[in-house]
Amino acid sequence: MQLGILYGISVGTGDPELITLKGLRYLQQCPIVAFPAGLGERPGIAQQIITDWLKPQQTTLALNFPYVQNESTLVSAWQQAARQVWQHLRQGKNVAFACEGDVSFYSTFTYLAQTLQDLHPEAVVKTVPGVCSPMAVASALQIPLTIRSQRLAILPAIYTIDELETVLDWAEVVILLKVNSVYERVWQVLHQRNLLDRSWIVEKATFPEQKIYRNLAKYPQLQLSYFSLLLIQAHHT
Amino acid sequence: MQLGILYGISVGTGDPELITLKGLRYLQQCPIVAFPAGLGERPGIAQQIITDWLKPQQTTLALNFPYVQNESTLVSAWQQAARQVWQHLRQGKNVAFACEGDVSFYSTFTYLAQTLQDLHPEAVVKTVPGVCSPMAVASALQIPLTIRSQRLAILPAIYTIDELETVLDWAEVVILLKVNSVYERVWQVLHQRNLLDRSWIVEKATFPEQKIYRNLAKYPQLQLSYFSLLLIQAHHT
Repeated sequence: MQLGILYGISVGTGDPELITLKGLRYLQQCPIVAFPAGLGERPGIAQQIITDWLKPQQTTLALNFPYVQNESTLVSAWQQAARQVWQHLRQGKNVAFACEGDVSFYSTFTYLAQTLQDLHPEAVVKTVPGVCSPMAVASALQIPLTIRSQRLAILPAIYTIDELETVLDWAEVVILLKVNSVYERVWQVLHQRNLLDRSWIVEKATFPEQKIYRNLAKYPQLQLSYFSLLLIQAHHT
Repeated sequence: MQLGILYGISVGTGDPELITLKGLRYLQQCPIVAFPAGLGERPGIAQQIITDWLKPQQTTLALNFPYVQNESTLVSAWQQAARQVWQHLRQGKNVAFACEGDVSFYSTFTYLAQTLQDLHPEAVVKTVPGVCSPMAVASALQIPLTIRSQRLAILPAIYTIDELETVLDWAEVVILLKVNSVYERVWQVLHQRNLLDRSWIVEKATFPEQKIYRNLAKYPQLQLSYFSLLLIQAHHT
């Protein structure tokens, strides 16, 4: 029997209409649709995004990716998820994995795909690119992300304030992902560099509950969700 | 009469199916569809991407954005394009501007929109985000673009080799856009840093003529098109 294919499908940043035509086509063609399980009883983010696109005959598969740092807990979870996906692939069924944002951009899908291919080197994986959060945030703010010769730097959640200073010296446009955990310290740096009026936060971009913060001088402290992105125009150009 | 709206629509990187559902909906709802004119008799890139999505009753509007550095030539062209768009908006007609890649990411649309709003501050502009080239390239290569705490740096066409050295010291993942004009000098840097086997070039990602170069040690020289992107995994993680 021919093996099924695992499709990593970028479903965009929140608005269900920000999936691509290609992503939707593959999503709807796969008999099995997987996604990261939500916390507690709540559906996961990717699941929320795609819920209206699923057809009654499709089987959903919520995979457990715990929000922890412990490496062995993570590896066990990836292996468990890969085994669950493999059960379908080995029966010749294609599996779509719905991935919030873009599937190549700080995505859980990477670990699932790599673990699957470690366990079963014959597994076939394909991906469909999509809308990532920096692009969605720029459109939400109605400002260009980058123009001309501007350099763009993107930092994920884990960084030190020294790193932030370095990158503000270097790049014209700086994006900090998941800024919630370090916001107050970042605010101090922006204040010292007189960049508060050249910085914006977008929380849950393109979701109905999207929230935009401008003029950050007013907000030395903010309670932000995990899906918060800070955009800084670091130099006057 | 109510003014028309100018929609900046990201149409993705080449494959016509990489437009979002939202982008396609706005594209098909606007009576006027604008795009950058091609060179000579050839259709422009965005025009090629959307051609199968247009309806017979839609009017196309090719806008001239010359490929030059001269500022006053550029400003004249932007003003001319803005006036052409305004002729339709003032008659209450919505205009879709089709933009290759993402509309906020080093896009001609930015200049058109800013010039239009300088000339006519009452003009209303909205944008739809889309698939940008780094995401498309990662999917084409079947590698993750970024994972975990990796820092990502994106440099556009204009940069010096010193800048490249700095960014390779700093970021784990480096993207050089439009690498065609500086490829040989970049290759020397990658060679000296032993990064040739951790670098990939994708030319015309997601177009039928997409071409991938791996193992760059074999290619100290390459004739590349304008739409060539170099991805470097700078540090071993």
